[in-house]
Amino acid sequence: METKISTDQELIDCFIPMKENRGIKPEPIQVWVSDVHIGGREVIIIAGPCAVESMEQLVETAVSVKKSNAKILRGGAFKPRSSPYSFQGLGEEGLKMLHEVSIKTGLPVVTEVMDTRQIEIVCRYADMLQIGSRNMQNYPLLKEVGKTNKPVLLKRGMMATIEEFLMAAEYILSQGNKQVVLCERGIRTFETSTRNTLDLSAVPMLKRLSHLPVIVDPSHGTGLSWMVPSMAKAAVAAGADGLIMEVHYKPEEALCDGQQSLGLHEFTQLMKDLKRVAQAVGRDV
Amino acid sequence: METKISTDQELIDCFIPMKENRGIKPEPIQVWVSDVHIGGREVIIIAGPCAVESMEQLVETAVSVKKSNAKILRGGAFKPRSSPYSFQGLGEEGLKMLHEVSIKTGLPVVTEVMDTRQIEIVCRYADMLQIGSRNMQNYPLLKEVGKTNKPVLLKRGMMATIEEFLMAAEYILSQGNKQVVLCERGIRTFETSTRNTLDLSAVPMLKRLSHLPVIVDPSHGTGLSWMVPSMAKAAVAAGADGLIMEVHYKPEEALCDGQQSLGLHEFTQLMKDLKRVAQAVGRDV
Amino acid sequence: METKISTDQELIDCFIPMKENRGIKPEPIQVWVSDVHIGGREVIIIAGPCAVESMEQLVETAVSVKKSNAKILRGGAFKPRSSPYSFQGLGEEGLKMLHEVSIKTGLPVVTEVMDTRQIEIVCRYADMLQIGSRNMQNYPLLKEVGKTNKPVLLKRGMMATIEEFLMAAEYILSQGNKQVVLCERGIRTFETSTRNTLDLSAVPMLKRLSHLPVIVDPSHGTGLSWMVPSMAKAAVAAGADGLIMEVHYKPEEALCDGQQSLGLHEFTQLMKDLKRVAQAVGRDV
Amino acid sequence: METKISTDQELIDCFIPMKENRGIKPEPIQVWVSDVHIGGREVIIIAGPCAVESMEQLVETAVSVKKSNAKILRGGAFKPRSSPYSFQGLGEEGLKMLHEVSIKTGLPVVTEVMDTRQIEIVCRYADMLQIGSRNMQNYPLLKEVGKTNKPVLLKRGMMATIEEFLMAAEYILSQGNKQVVLCERGIRTFETSTRNTLDLSAVPMLKRLSHLPVIVDPSHGTGLSWMVPSMAKAAVAAGADGLIMEVHYKPEEALCDGQQSLGLHEFTQLMKDLKRVAQAVGRDV
Repeated sequence: METKISTDQELIDCFIPMKENRGIKPEPIQVWVSDVHIGGREVIIIAGPCAVESMEQLVETAVSVKKSNAKILRGGAFKPRSSPYSFQGLGEEGLKMLHEVSIKTGLPVVTEVMDTRQIEIVCRYADMLQIGSRNMQNYPLLKEVGKTNKPVLLKRGMMATIEEFLMAAEYILSQGNKQVVLCERGIRTFETSTRNTLDLSAVPMLKRLSHLPVIVDPSHGTGLSWMVPSMAKAAVAAGADGLIMEVHYKPEEALCDGQQSLGLHEFTQLMKDLKRVAQAVGRDV
Repeated sequence: METKISTDQELIDCFIPMKENRGIKPEPIQVWVSDVHIGGREVIIIAGPCAVESMEQLVETAVSVKKSNAKILRGGAFKPRSSPYSFQGLGEEGLKMLHEVSIKTGLPVVTEVMDTRQIEIVCRYADMLQIGSRNMQNYPLLKEVGKTNKPVLLKRGMMATIEEFLMAAEYILSQGNKQVVLCERGIRTFETSTRNTLDLSAVPMLKRLSHLPVIVDPSHGTGLSWMVPSMAKAAVAAGADGLIMEVHYKPEEALCDGQQSLGLHEFTQLMKDLKRVAQAVGRDV
Repeated sequence: METKISTDQELIDCFIPMKENRGIKPEPIQVWVSDVHIGGREVIIIAGPCAVESMEQLVETAVSVKKSNAKILRGGAFKPRSSPYSFQGLGEEGLKMLHEVSIKTGLPVVTEVMDTRQIEIVCRYADMLQIGSRNMQNYPLLKEVGKTNKPVLLKRGMMATIEEFLMAAEYILSQGNKQVVLCERGIRTFETSTRNTLDLSAVPMLKRLSHLPVIVDPSHGTGLSWMVPSMAKAAVAAGADGLIMEVHYKPEEALCDGQQSLGLHEFTQLMKDLKRVAQAVGRDV
Repeated sequence: METKISTDQELIDCFIPMKENRGIKPEPIQVWVSDVHIGGREVIIIAGPCAVESMEQLVETAVSVKKSNAKILRGGAFKPRSSPYSFQGLGEEGLKMLHEVSIKTGLPVVTEVMDTRQIEIVCRYADMLQIGSRNMQNYPLLKEVGKTNKPVLLKRGMMATIEEFLMAAEYILSQGNKQVVLCERGIRTFETSTRNTLDLSAVPMLKRLSHLPVIVDPSHGTGLSWMVPSMAKAAVAAGADGLIMEVHYKPEEALCDGQQSLGLHEFTQLMKDLKRVAQAVGRDV
């Protein structure tokens, strides 16, 4: 109610139409995560387990996804779980494992930060900060990551409109940090056969309204590993600048979200298929 | 997670898992619309105006889309409109125009039937009967089209679950007509920047649960002509067996849904792009 | 998309604000169902089984709900069911039972009509025609009931906005039949602990935007008989002109919707509670 | 149909059914906010402005709502706003004003805390901590307020299921703080004529599944001040243990949410009407 795009008097950093109306010509930006850039011709693949569980799990997964051409490693150390009695993540120990594996493999690392008090420690170990779906409107957290010099992966809230999503990005941009990547990860609808409803129309919409790179998370978007390949290909065809996917070396033993995780072999196969689709739309993987 | 049909005791025609549980091995079927078949390797493109308005409009559009390789012509003669004061379609006159243009161009024709009393006359002129989104649970209508020998294009209700959609198909199949094509056309969610939210995950889900061909309508699914190409490509990448799209020779003058209609030139360009994406996933247009 | 209330050029019968803008002073109308009027000071209670099953069931239920002060009997003869293999209603035989019990008890009868071809026969036996949720946008059906002289109970589609609901009423009114009662019966949302989400804010909204009486169906709105009393009281407190509730003499044996049906004793108790709430808001039951 | 907590092995504090299955007899608890208790026979009214703006505004509003029998004063010092350029609240200065007015009027004070770093200062000035809708799944924040000895008002997330809502409460309870009040404040649906869809069925559902008091916020639930009285009465009729409402001495000048704020006179009138409805359901205001 309170934030009509059309009535706001301020200069909004992320809305291309608003900038153009004021005579400013915005250019699509590229976000750098260590030496990987998101927002260029190449579709960037981010892969790894839902949660960091052990060095063995992390190393095996990281080495394998790197071989298949993934460019960034994902893995949660602090996990937002619906129940307080579910596995909550390894915390700082998990961050250290991520950092170590990052050095071993050369893959930069993205991991979630859930609380303003965690930012300092997460910045110490991670190359990119992830703001999860449940925290998309955690404004103190958005402002604080906006004061860091780390690139931010901002996931859409499962019930957030496109406008609210861009406004959340604006909270980060307004503090000076312009390195923000938007991530569509499924919205909540009446349909229950999938975990969420992956809203791929968000990809062209966000790219039209803003200058920020847009990636897609087909793992959370569907909740079903057998459906991830179809939707990953669809996301690339729709114009996504990247994908973030859950990959586990033993999905059936995962401590969290095993049902939606690809195995190592499935991921390798998918990467080949994605390359063909990316090339069909003038890009590459 | 997966759709459960827990209570029904009957042998359900459209659910592959239920059939397999009973030891029956169902095969994907192909639906024939005149000499065009849907459900094979080729992705079938259905194109044409939202509503039949005049012979000039219909001929110019049909000739052009055929040249670009569309295989079936669409066009509404009976139009379901939210307001009783909006244009309601040309009725039988529109059907005659469709039939005439079909003969001229060789394109078979699909058009909507809204009432049991219209079935006879629509069958006289059309090659395929469309059941619109608002009538997906109009059970007397479903039963009656199930008694005809015309193939049926069944659109998903904008608030229908996957299970309800398959049950609606079952109403047709149970009457003896096995020639049913399912069409995802966007569901209603909280998001208002698009007309509906195109649920592309419905494509792999429907194909897994049933043996019926599945097509996608990116025109109604987005409501925005500039977004149709992105979502059309995504639908093909996700595994759709076809697309149905609104194309108008003068979108800005259309009596209905002009905002979501492609112009002739845009459609021609899109068909080239679709061919590349189809080939990238092992199919063709 | 196509029907903005604010831009329509026609005189819309059901929208009070539009009429007032044109200098017409609309008054709330009262709908007469035989000798019962809906839309006055009294909150009208409609009760009866989901489906007509037998004379015994119908008589026992009707006599009991009448004793508790229900004013209209409900009961389905033609049943819209998600599966074609579920019980579909007794058809004309059910209509005859309804008519006979109506004469025996003096209660007028409301029952659903699903198809234009059924209108004549339903009009022969019923005092009020019900358009079910799934048919709210079945425009040929709406137009045809608009040509009869029977009052119409129009249920909100589970996916219909307030505006679409009023436009559906307009399809009936535009044909000359002004005796329309609107019924809120729950909308579809992400929440699954109830069958639907009963949108009680629709009551004050519809009463502000139109001059038609508004009633509420807490049985379908919740799907849970234990919750019906709470929501029935809430509906009356919110300003509803009536309630329609499922009551069965043996809920556990009901052929349809037993889980949401009140038993005879529960209904009697509820009617006493409703009287107190109605009086607290200046009305009566 | 009913909420299932299928996987958790722990003893869940807030779920009555789970406790009963373990042979523990849970009793409805009462929450004490200073000398006011929520969860007893009396329906507790919490009123005040959306945001603290000035001493004049706060004093005039507080004195007036107290005279009308409100028992707790609300007012935001830290405001979660969709846009970073909207008024963000007065911060600590606002907290001091709340505290001062609380002492002047004898009304205890509830105010929102948005960040773990704010908890200490908010606890210094407030009698009850509010967790807002956007932070319902901000787990670090929930855990921290669970370690304080202040009662907590937990608002349902606009996209949260009943189960997720109870699990969020569990995050607080599991840390030792058992003084939690649940607040239904509207969920997000496809309907746009109201700001949210107030889900009053949540009241009986939450009271059945848990032993925590349940209150309703008809101001955010509807977004329309003219609709607040209808829905406030409906909430009390549905069994709510309290209401929280936005009241402003000059709604048209409010810095935030003026459209949904009652004026002082409207509030006074509503309190009289609420008393009658409360008594009709065996309670009082």
